[in-house]
Amino acid sequence: MKKTTLLIHCPDKKGIIANVTNFILSKDGNTTYVEQHVDRDLEEFFMRLECEFDNDERKLAKFKEAFHQQMAANHSMKWQMYDRDKKPKMAIFVSKYDHCLYDILSRHASGELKVKIPLIISNHKDLEHIAQAFTIPFVHIPVTKQNKEQAEQRQIDLLKEHKIDLIVLARYMQILSENFVTQFPNRIINIHHSFLPAFPGAKPYHSAYKRGVKIIGATSHYVTSDLDEGPIIEQEIVRVSHVHDVEDFILKGRDLEKIVLSRAIKLHLERKVLVYNNKTVVFS
Amino acid sequence: MKKTTLLIHCPDKKGIIANVTNFILSKDGNTTYVEQHVDRDLEEFFMRLECEFDNDERKLAKFKEAFHQQMAANHSMKWQMYDRDKKPKMAIFVSKYDHCLYDILSRHASGELKVKIPLIISNHKDLEHIAQAFTIPFVHIPVTKQNKEQAEQRQIDLLKEHKIDLIVLARYMQILSENFVTQFPNRIINIHHSFLPAFPGAKPYHSAYKRGVKIIGATSHYVTSDLDEGPIIEQEIVRVSHVHDVEDFILKGRDLEKIVLSRAIKLHLERKVLVYNNKTVVFS
Amino acid sequence: MKKTTLLIHCPDKKGIIANVTNFILSKDGNTTYVEQHVDRDLEEFFMRLECEFDNDERKLAKFKEAFHQQMAANHSMKWQMYDRDKKPKMAIFVSKYDHCLYDILSRHASGELKVKIPLIISNHKDLEHIAQAFTIPFVHIPVTKQNKEQAEQRQIDLLKEHKIDLIVLARYMQILSENFVTQFPNRIINIHHSFLPAFPGAKPYHSAYKRGVKIIGATSHYVTSDLDEGPIIEQEIVRVSHVHDVEDFILKGRDLEKIVLSRAIKLHLERKVLVYNNKTVVFS
Amino acid sequence: MKKTTLLIHCPDKKGIIANVTNFILSKDGNTTYVEQHVDRDLEEFFMRLECEFDNDERKLAKFKEAFHQQMAANHSMKWQMYDRDKKPKMAIFVSKYDHCLYDILSRHASGELKVKIPLIISNHKDLEHIAQAFTIPFVHIPVTKQNKEQAEQRQIDLLKEHKIDLIVLARYMQILSENFVTQFPNRIINIHHSFLPAFPGAKPYHSAYKRGVKIIGATSHYVTSDLDEGPIIEQEIVRVSHVHDVEDFILKGRDLEKIVLSRAIKLHLERKVLVYNNKTVVFS
Repeated sequence: MKKTTLLIHCPDKKGIIANVTNFILSKDGNTTYVEQHVDRDLEEFFMRLECEFDNDERKLAKFKEAFHQQMAANHSMKWQMYDRDKKPKMAIFVSKYDHCLYDILSRHASGELKVKIPLIISNHKDLEHIAQAFTIPFVHIPVTKQNKEQAEQRQIDLLKEHKIDLIVLARYMQILSENFVTQFPNRIINIHHSFLPAFPGAKPYHSAYKRGVKIIGATSHYVTSDLDEGPIIEQEIVRVSHVHDVEDFILKGRDLEKIVLSRAIKLHLERKVLVYNNKTVVFS
Repeated sequence: MKKTTLLIHCPDKKGIIANVTNFILSKDGNTTYVEQHVDRDLEEFFMRLECEFDNDERKLAKFKEAFHQQMAANHSMKWQMYDRDKKPKMAIFVSKYDHCLYDILSRHASGELKVKIPLIISNHKDLEHIAQAFTIPFVHIPVTKQNKEQAEQRQIDLLKEHKIDLIVLARYMQILSENFVTQFPNRIINIHHSFLPAFPGAKPYHSAYKRGVKIIGATSHYVTSDLDEGPIIEQEIVRVSHVHDVEDFILKGRDLEKIVLSRAIKLHLERKVLVYNNKTVVFS
Repeated sequence: MKKTTLLIHCPDKKGIIANVTNFILSKDGNTTYVEQHVDRDLEEFFMRLECEFDNDERKLAKFKEAFHQQMAANHSMKWQMYDRDKKPKMAIFVSKYDHCLYDILSRHASGELKVKIPLIISNHKDLEHIAQAFTIPFVHIPVTKQNKEQAEQRQIDLLKEHKIDLIVLARYMQILSENFVTQFPNRIINIHHSFLPAFPGAKPYHSAYKRGVKIIGATSHYVTSDLDEGPIIEQEIVRVSHVHDVEDFILKGRDLEKIVLSRAIKLHLERKVLVYNNKTVVFS
Repeated sequence: MKKTTLLIHCPDKKGIIANVTNFILSKDGNTTYVEQHVDRDLEEFFMRLECEFDNDERKLAKFKEAFHQQMAANHSMKWQMYDRDKKPKMAIFVSKYDHCLYDILSRHASGELKVKIPLIISNHKDLEHIAQAFTIPFVHIPVTKQNKEQAEQRQIDLLKEHKIDLIVLARYMQILSENFVTQFPNRIINIHHSFLPAFPGAKPYHSAYKRGVKIIGATSHYVTSDLDEGPIIEQEIVRVSHVHDVEDFILKGRDLEKIVLSRAIKLHLERKVLVYNNKTVVFS
């Protein structure tokens, strides 16, 4: 059987769950799992279905054609269908901090992340040895004020050449231009080392220390052209107290950043995240 | 519109989500929310649907009749349908500890709990003043080794007389007999002051202290004739350390017990808990 | 034995722990527990000692006199000494939300809070029945734009008349004037229904919903003349998701607010909170 | 300055904090941080001091001699003094699970763990490539029923040869003999993949799934000759629900195991753990 994931987003309407599941059944598909969400204020409907079909590419293409014409058109749907056995391709951007990179590559090596990683890109050479230890290609693209545009173009070329589906900024200490960001909508995940919207921008642990908070956090989000303002995918926190100084915050934050970024990557790869209205629906 | 909740439990089978939602649609009902679960090992299927129908008792009775004959029979379903606007009736059993009682009655008074509380039953008079402060009827039924059977019979008579749907043991320090328990299957919720299955039985905080654990917990579960072995509904924990003695455990545990018991009550009242195989499916 | 708590704040200096504990020992006192903190950036030293002395008021007065002259003067100390068996007096300010009030009064009735509550003040009559159920005096002082100054003066008069040590704003929906606040420095505790510094000001749950955060929080802090900017005592969070709307945030937040406010009250009553530099040292 | 950590355990007695800190001061030492604990039931006293002395080995040796004679003897103390700038030596035992090993070696490579790792020992060759990627010596010592005694002897010889201070069982799937364990009292840390004392022994995730718990955990503890009964150092939990099967428990548990084991290692290396009565005092 061909296992697929179907994501649907459309205006809310009576009968839609029955219509879609019945349509799939009528085409010899089987819906094994459904999750849906309705935003009552906006009257928007979201659904994620896990469906199984005969393993026959021609029949599946036919199904998609029929779905497009008979379902999507009628309900003004945005929809995507993913083959669950096909691994997406992910590129990792890093600078000098190693903890998120170690975490992602360890999980990948352990088989936890169902993804191909054809590419690590960095503006520094500091972490090249880690890429080598895990035998992942590492490309060093220095970024300066002067060469930023060309550097980004080289990054974009590499990403397109490798047909990258997902870009992960694993503590990449550069701000991507609007030109870059808009070419990969909802396909760039960043980890910010604060509990957004508290402490956006630079040095959030220093700001948190100064304010005397009792809890610090980390936030993974899709990158938009508004810095630290993109749709939040996942957040996590850890308690701190007066005994912890900024160095302790940074150290505790490392564990937060790793875990929050990994969770966001997994959710994205499992096609559980839908974006709308600068927010996310994150199915379980 | 009549808002209903439909709970279904049956063997897993292709097409069941489509079949049920389509059946509802065909009878002028609208399925606004679906959650389902499949136990792959046991091949059991569980579904919770929120459906809306015309507010017409006769039509609804007809729907139930049709559902029973055309759906339930075909799929070997166990099913229940609840009117979401109708408040169930809950009895609270207490002994001498007041914190869970205060918590439940405060939430009830605040309008947080959609339930009627016609009855508090206790084997002691210690908490009668609380029942009075919240103007809930309080019945004192002393329980001794000698009178246990008659006492339980009087409790059962009261519960039936008041048509009680749910019995909450809010730190009721008596073990109910098998005779009592089997008359209210999956309708008695207990709070146990440990992270089950760790520390079943009496004095769990003392045992936890002796073992030197770093986390203590509380567990709410349906009561079965095996003490502390019933299906778990909800658990929560709190960190402890060497600085805390047994008294501190007890004090910290009070907050746990309150919150875990309240969550279980809410989940039950919202018809989100299905029991099978001595476990629970808890829909979100 | 007379059990006391001694709080010390002074510039950091070699030998200070030894000096203070030895001084106490030399005056027939016994230090049973010491916690201290050094802010390395500011070179400030903080210490909390639990000490026991003979139960003799004259000797204790002598000790304080000697401590003042021989210790405090030498080390430029700010210090306070508290009798641990003496219950402080606490006033509660409320408006219309009942959950924090129920929580505090339940804990007080259960004996959890070692405090006297001679007074509940409210700008509305809505919660008077709760004060009555717990037999605590309730004073209704309406506040309007026009009468705010007089209303506050009446509040202040009542607080002074009752020799109130601690004022708790249990979802009191009024902003206190600078004149009020400065008369009770570090003695007014507020609960704010967000994870500060995220979402200060009005309607934080609405803002959190709009931003699409995955975690919401509550913050208890001492009130200063800068709204929501005072020293944070305690924070707690709870996870939310796309399925929760603003009403769910508010409902989940109720439990947060109760627990965070109660923890702050307990910490204050146990003399575990020291304030400096708009932050708190919270001893365990 | 020479930075040291002093750990003390003795019967509780009036004046002991003052006596010790004053003794240090009298020998030109400075106590910068003190934590202490009293077990009121057992009347045992525990203290951890961070002290600074002149960087002069002879003077420090003299201090230790004096402390031994004038303090330790008088108070029946057990005590140890550690040089905080000296890195201890740690050996890691693994079998086939890689996640804890990746985690420890990544943290070590990042500079998070102040320790030398001269040795990884395994009964399988599966993880040798990880040791190589991080350039840590890997010794393969197969263990069978027949050769267990000799295999352990070879392990012990290697540990002694390398003057190993701490042994970490990072999901090492063998039970150490009593002979082995008693040679390294409170110096072997194990990670057990359940919230002890729930689910001791083999396959705890399977047992947890069967019982239908809503929270799973992991526990790090010192190894004693009673399997899974040693003093607990740290525990952590994560929520699960009916949607998670045993595979999900195992996957979620990986993150727990890593974090709980790393925390225990750090606490041990910072000399923050004292063992008594099969429990731990864990200073902050």
